[in-house]
Amino acid sequence: MRIGVLGAGQLGRMLALAGYPLAKTFVFYDLSGSPSAGLGEIIIDRDGKYLDDFLSRVDRVTYEFEHLPVAVAEKIAESHPVYPGPKALEVCQNRQAEKTLFGNLGIPTPQWRMASSAEQLRTVAEELGCPVVAKSNTEGYDGKGQAVLRSPDEAAAAWEAIGHQHLMVEKFVAFSREISIIAVRGIDGDLAFYPMAENVHDQGILRYSIAPAPELNADLEEEARRYIKALLNELDYVGVLALELFETAEGLVANEMAPRVHNSGHWTMEGAFTSQFENHIRAISGHPLGNTGARGVSCMVNIIAEHGDIDRILELPYAHLHLYAKGERPGRKLGHVNVLADSYEELKWRIRNVSQFLPGSPELDCSLTR
Amino acid sequence: MRIGVLGAGQLGRMLALAGYPLAKTFVFYDLSGSPSAGLGEIIIDRDGKYLDDFLSRVDRVTYEFEHLPVAVAEKIAESHPVYPGPKALEVCQNRQAEKTLFGNLGIPTPQWRMASSAEQLRTVAEELGCPVVAKSNTEGYDGKGQAVLRSPDEAAAAWEAIGHQHLMVEKFVAFSREISIIAVRGIDGDLAFYPMAENVHDQGILRYSIAPAPELNADLEEEARRYIKALLNELDYVGVLALELFETAEGLVANEMAPRVHNSGHWTMEGAFTSQFENHIRAISGHPLGNTGARGVSCMVNIIAEHGDIDRILELPYAHLHLYAKGERPGRKLGHVNVLADSYEELKWRIRNVSQFLPGSPELDCSLTR
Repeated sequence: MRIGVLGAGQLGRMLALAGYPLAKTFVFYDLSGSPSAGLGEIIIDRDGKYLDDFLSRVDRVTYEFEHLPVAVAEKIAESHPVYPGPKALEVCQNRQAEKTLFGNLGIPTPQWRMASSAEQLRTVAEELGCPVVAKSNTEGYDGKGQAVLRSPDEAAAAWEAIGHQHLMVEKFVAFSREISIIAVRGIDGDLAFYPMAENVHDQGILRYSIAPAPELNADLEEEARRYIKALLNELDYVGVLALELFETAEGLVANEMAPRVHNSGHWTMEGAFTSQFENHIRAISGHPLGNTGARGVSCMVNIIAEHGDIDRILELPYAHLHLYAKGERPGRKLGHVNVLADSYEELKWRIRNVSQFLPGSPELDCSLTR
Repeated sequence: MRIGVLGAGQLGRMLALAGYPLAKTFVFYDLSGSPSAGLGEIIIDRDGKYLDDFLSRVDRVTYEFEHLPVAVAEKIAESHPVYPGPKALEVCQNRQAEKTLFGNLGIPTPQWRMASSAEQLRTVAEELGCPVVAKSNTEGYDGKGQAVLRSPDEAAAAWEAIGHQHLMVEKFVAFSREISIIAVRGIDGDLAFYPMAENVHDQGILRYSIAPAPELNADLEEEARRYIKALLNELDYVGVLALELFETAEGLVANEMAPRVHNSGHWTMEGAFTSQFENHIRAISGHPLGNTGARGVSCMVNIIAEHGDIDRILELPYAHLHLYAKGERPGRKLGHVNVLADSYEELKWRIRNVSQFLPGSPELDCSLTR
């Protein structure tokens, strides 16, 4: 089976690495002109001329990047199976649609309002009560296109800084940590859920994901599974879906979802029996889903901006290195290290050992260290 | 780093899958015209015209197939690092040279003689005492180019059947099982040893490898490590080396070695912390060697001739599928399934479960079932 992947970054790369052992082949369709998938045929199409050619070479289509025009996904869906479907893409590209769907399915979210001018931003900031977070409604990830307002007086400056016409404004949520759940749904509607991960961000970028999330209340995990199950079924979703949640004193609050394999699921490559990448390929190919159980405890440590001392990391007997073959650049994800252990205490020190060879890694501040 | 691989079969494929996460790229050089590596650039060179072109695209060279002309490896070594070196290749292509080296290093072998005619074959069969195994000195693998003589009278027929001019004739060894050891040596001489595997063959083809080998005496394992260490150091070897041994009442007896990643090490993909493929790439690239420790117990089940019921295998939560994307053909290795467990008792039943979906799999007959 020939799988076409829209986008050609590291997620596509890891999908392919997981898919070759299942006898799949891959063709990447890249809109940006800077592919990094590194294996498989890559069609660069900056002007949108080669879509038909791409489609003639593949049997079905998935994506590793959700910021592509829904119209493209819809056009593809006329001739090829596209998993997940264009509907999931549409919802995930629009914060208002996403939060509305969450609300309709009974998934708690922060209080939110839309704002289409600096004045409206000021007004909704007053209504919600600061601090609030203002985000571009249709773009932005990894903390880009966002601003925090400590007071309504900051509305004009925030509006200017974000530079978009439609903003979602969310009341700040007092949370103890961010946790995410990754689940997969097959073509036949089968479901499988990974153990949740605790995520640690720094400057808006994910740095650590610890899985299974330490000291997670079983009821909360059950609640998260209910939420993501509702989303998967509502969207008639096929493939891997990620849902980021805040853990608060009042329970879980949904932050956002991503209709694809997700950075907070990279720990599954060695930390679970079947990786999120293999399960995505299984799902979209119509195979049975794989075992999502954890093997011991693990942590994904992102390599950001600089590669650090790779050979020292390779010397650590509990570390697995995954490089994306990308050049160094501030804020860029260059790879990740999966750290394995048999206990959280062991894991904590192993994470610290690894991060000392990665310049700019923030001090580990999470439930393991508090 | 661009790694050139001589040969383009499933071993090259799995080397590449392990090497991409270390930011290596791969070019395959295929002499046969039937590549199956499936990823990376493949240069098919049936007439030997494109070697220079291949070399211009790579920084160093390794191989996944040892039956290539030593002269080719020597020519490459003039301009590029080749790991393992041509000397290892030369020894492994010639049973007489291999067994002589074993003898020089104090590694026990079956009693052997050379025969260059049907008459000589008869004579040495009488000298050694039947049964003996006659094997082409320079070719043959997976049981091809071999014959068993139950009596010296079978010499003429065996000579005819094998059809080669120089045969190694070995006295039959009464062994309780075949076990193999896989080790890796770095450019700096660092060594790492995998736990040994118990191998089960059927009609000359490996069917099961169980690792760590059940009930293995620690002294025997130490002995095997001494042997492979002597070989690695003597050959100034870089990369993964496999050594097949018979376990007998008198201790270990060496069968043969393979200067490459080996089928009896495929269990390491999920059954060890670092796979043999990753460790080979680490070694030839000059990186530190990875942790060779086992994760639980595991068994590699080969998929031979027919793919069987792949989706039923994918449903088993302890099975990992690795397909080579090859067409079905009698005796052909099409893929393998790695079966994981926490105990040998559990493993035994899981192997049986998997093999029921693989037509032609022999009944599991090994130390787990006796």
